[in-house]
Amino acid sequence: MDRFLAAAQEAMEHCHWIAERSEDVGRTTRTFLSPPMHEVHAYLRTWMENCGLTVEVDAVGNLRGTTGKTRLIIASHLDTVPAAGAYDGVLGVVMAVSLVRLMQGSAVGVEVIGFSEEEGVRFGAPFIGSRALVGSVQEMLSLTDRQGITVAGAIRQYGLDPERIAEAEVGPQAKAYLEIHIEQGPVLESLDLPLGVVEAIAGQSRLDVTFSGQSNHAGTTPMALRRDALAGAAEWIQVVESEAQATAGLVATVGYLEAHPNVRNAINGRLVASLDVRHAQDHVRLAAVDSLLAQASRIGERRGLRVTSKTNLDQAAVPMDSGLVDLLAEAVSATGRTAHRMTSGAGHDAMIVAQRLPCAMLFLRSPGGISHHPDERVLVEDVAAGLEAGIEFLKGWEARNV
Amino acid sequence: MDRFLAAAQEAMEHCHWIAERSEDVGRTTRTFLSPPMHEVHAYLRTWMENCGLTVEVDAVGNLRGTTGKTRLIIASHLDTVPAAGAYDGVLGVVMAVSLVRLMQGSAVGVEVIGFSEEEGVRFGAPFIGSRALVGSVQEMLSLTDRQGITVAGAIRQYGLDPERIAEAEVGPQAKAYLEIHIEQGPVLESLDLPLGVVEAIAGQSRLDVTFSGQSNHAGTTPMALRRDALAGAAEWIQVVESEAQATAGLVATVGYLEAHPNVRNAINGRLVASLDVRHAQDHVRLAAVDSLLAQASRIGERRGLRVTSKTNLDQAAVPMDSGLVDLLAEAVSATGRTAHRMTSGAGHDAMIVAQRLPCAMLFLRSPGGISHHPDERVLVEDVAAGLEAGIEFLKGWEARNV
Repeated sequence: MDRFLAAAQEAMEHCHWIAERSEDVGRTTRTFLSPPMHEVHAYLRTWMENCGLTVEVDAVGNLRGTTGKTRLIIASHLDTVPAAGAYDGVLGVVMAVSLVRLMQGSAVGVEVIGFSEEEGVRFGAPFIGSRALVGSVQEMLSLTDRQGITVAGAIRQYGLDPERIAEAEVGPQAKAYLEIHIEQGPVLESLDLPLGVVEAIAGQSRLDVTFSGQSNHAGTTPMALRRDALAGAAEWIQVVESEAQATAGLVATVGYLEAHPNVRNAINGRLVASLDVRHAQDHVRLAAVDSLLAQASRIGERRGLRVTSKTNLDQAAVPMDSGLVDLLAEAVSATGRTAHRMTSGAGHDAMIVAQRLPCAMLFLRSPGGISHHPDERVLVEDVAAGLEAGIEFLKGWEARNV
Repeated sequence: MDRFLAAAQEAMEHCHWIAERSEDVGRTTRTFLSPPMHEVHAYLRTWMENCGLTVEVDAVGNLRGTTGKTRLIIASHLDTVPAAGAYDGVLGVVMAVSLVRLMQGSAVGVEVIGFSEEEGVRFGAPFIGSRALVGSVQEMLSLTDRQGITVAGAIRQYGLDPERIAEAEVGPQAKAYLEIHIEQGPVLESLDLPLGVVEAIAGQSRLDVTFSGQSNHAGTTPMALRRDALAGAAEWIQVVESEAQATAGLVATVGYLEAHPNVRNAINGRLVASLDVRHAQDHVRLAAVDSLLAQASRIGERRGLRVTSKTNLDQAAVPMDSGLVDLLAEAVSATGRTAHRMTSGAGHDAMIVAQRLPCAMLFLRSPGGISHHPDERVLVEDVAAGLEAGIEFLKGWEARNV
């Protein structure tokens, strides 16, 4: 067996062991600084030290292992959603340690980070771990969880000191950031490719669009006298789909519906439909939102419906560093594989770290596109491919920076 | 003031008094044999006796007043939905008594009936009152309300004897049935007409149609790789609306939606949509249902969605008696008004009584089409027009039958 496949098998076994460290019985749930995180930290610390890393847990609970003086950060997160799979986040941390082991003898300095929080489950706000690196976590310390415990309180309960949180910030030794993560979508599988190179993390718009007409009896109201909010929304949902299909790289989704009165023998007088629009280029996303709202208004006018909208989120796209993206794509190509350049539709820690450092992300194929679910999988050959590409990336990095 | 307008004003005042006899404070709710029904019966009994009717309450709680030997039944119901208006049902009973008073000196025998139950609120099944007339109420006696009281028990609690229910059945003296009711829809208002002549009570199909696709992340799933159950259902809802608009007299409504997972950042993997289809002719209704299900399947095939359906109701249309309908239309015309022939999209007691007797229904305009709501209204001029047409109908009936 080649060394990458052996390392991949070992990495996946580490993921499986970690997946059993859970707050819940029979499923994997591991939120920010929850009790099972102690076991995960102890387990990884031993392995990381065996690989020659100097390990500490910073004041926000990030597990950090370093070698060398100037450093490339290789990181992902160790927390999970409730009823999670074994690979989202964790695989990226484990593969970072595997890379350190595989690259022994290289002059590249590395910092491996297992972020304490990315999913936003416990405190309703994501990226607590990576925000500590860029100095923007202070404002989150007073958030409370369902038990009324603050972020600062959770840090203390875990045995850490929130007063020292500023020390978690990246210093001048850190030069760049690489994150390996499962794709959590079906694109690479549909292309029959193991690896993807992320060029940008998509910007997001989230809105609620409300169609207001007149509720009436389904039996006594002729078609011509209706102002059916649901029928108007249905017409618009078709427009949302068509416009996204016609715009390269755009995704637009109506995921949430709230119909009033939502009974079988009445016309709906009011319908709230959510709209989620994402694209790597903000001007494309914003133009799509404007166009979709204008079309909702036109549909409303024609049907005698009042259409209003509320914007809940308008988050700019985060491009990865083009030099680092090229280096990563060359590394994938050097392994004899196609380097598929793609947009990440989901958010990742790299979005936050990009405020401070050049960033790149390597995606691994997600079978069935399934994630945030116990059925989340990854192929051992793809993990091996990721490790091989990671080593090529480190070689390329060494040639340019060391 | 002409005598019809005076009688109409009086009738509406009776309705307003009755609307205050309620199970609830501050709104009108009067279900089957609830305590306030005693007051309504006592109030109407006095008035009916003053109008020369012989009054009794039958074993199912129907208030019945008779004159003459062979009889035309003029009836509607005295129960209401929760938070009802003042006119649905009640106005038809009150106008029946008004007609008896206005026709004094006529040789026509009349039975006025205030049915005890039409709305189906207390026992979840409608038409308890009118079913007693046609001998089909026996099977309902063991139904229970939320307190576990049976229909038979409710009858006993009210002071009546369920053993005598067979005596409520119509005998050979009853020759025909007329019901006056508010339209509960916007058709007459849209035509600027006070009165409508019902030709048939529409048949109804009720189904649930389920679209099953694949739930996925809204950000990471490109448009081309989606199997979005909601987008498929939205396409079909457009088809439902278009087909109904293109078919004379057809109404088709998607009123109820159930989306899974119904969250703002996920594609829905499953969507249940109700379908309510009504038409006066069963073959038109059934053909429409077949066509809409076939189109749902085609949409599903094209989109990779599984489409299944479940039929919850398939109720045949009930035509009114054509001779009686003609007589009623002539009566309306004789008052100098347009006799608009129409279908009732909602069910009425006449549907049940039609199993036994020739039936006709006169509709009164519903301002705003509003019913089953405290804002339910009726115009005093329309009530006067209804009484005038009713008297013309009785004259026509007398000429042919007495």
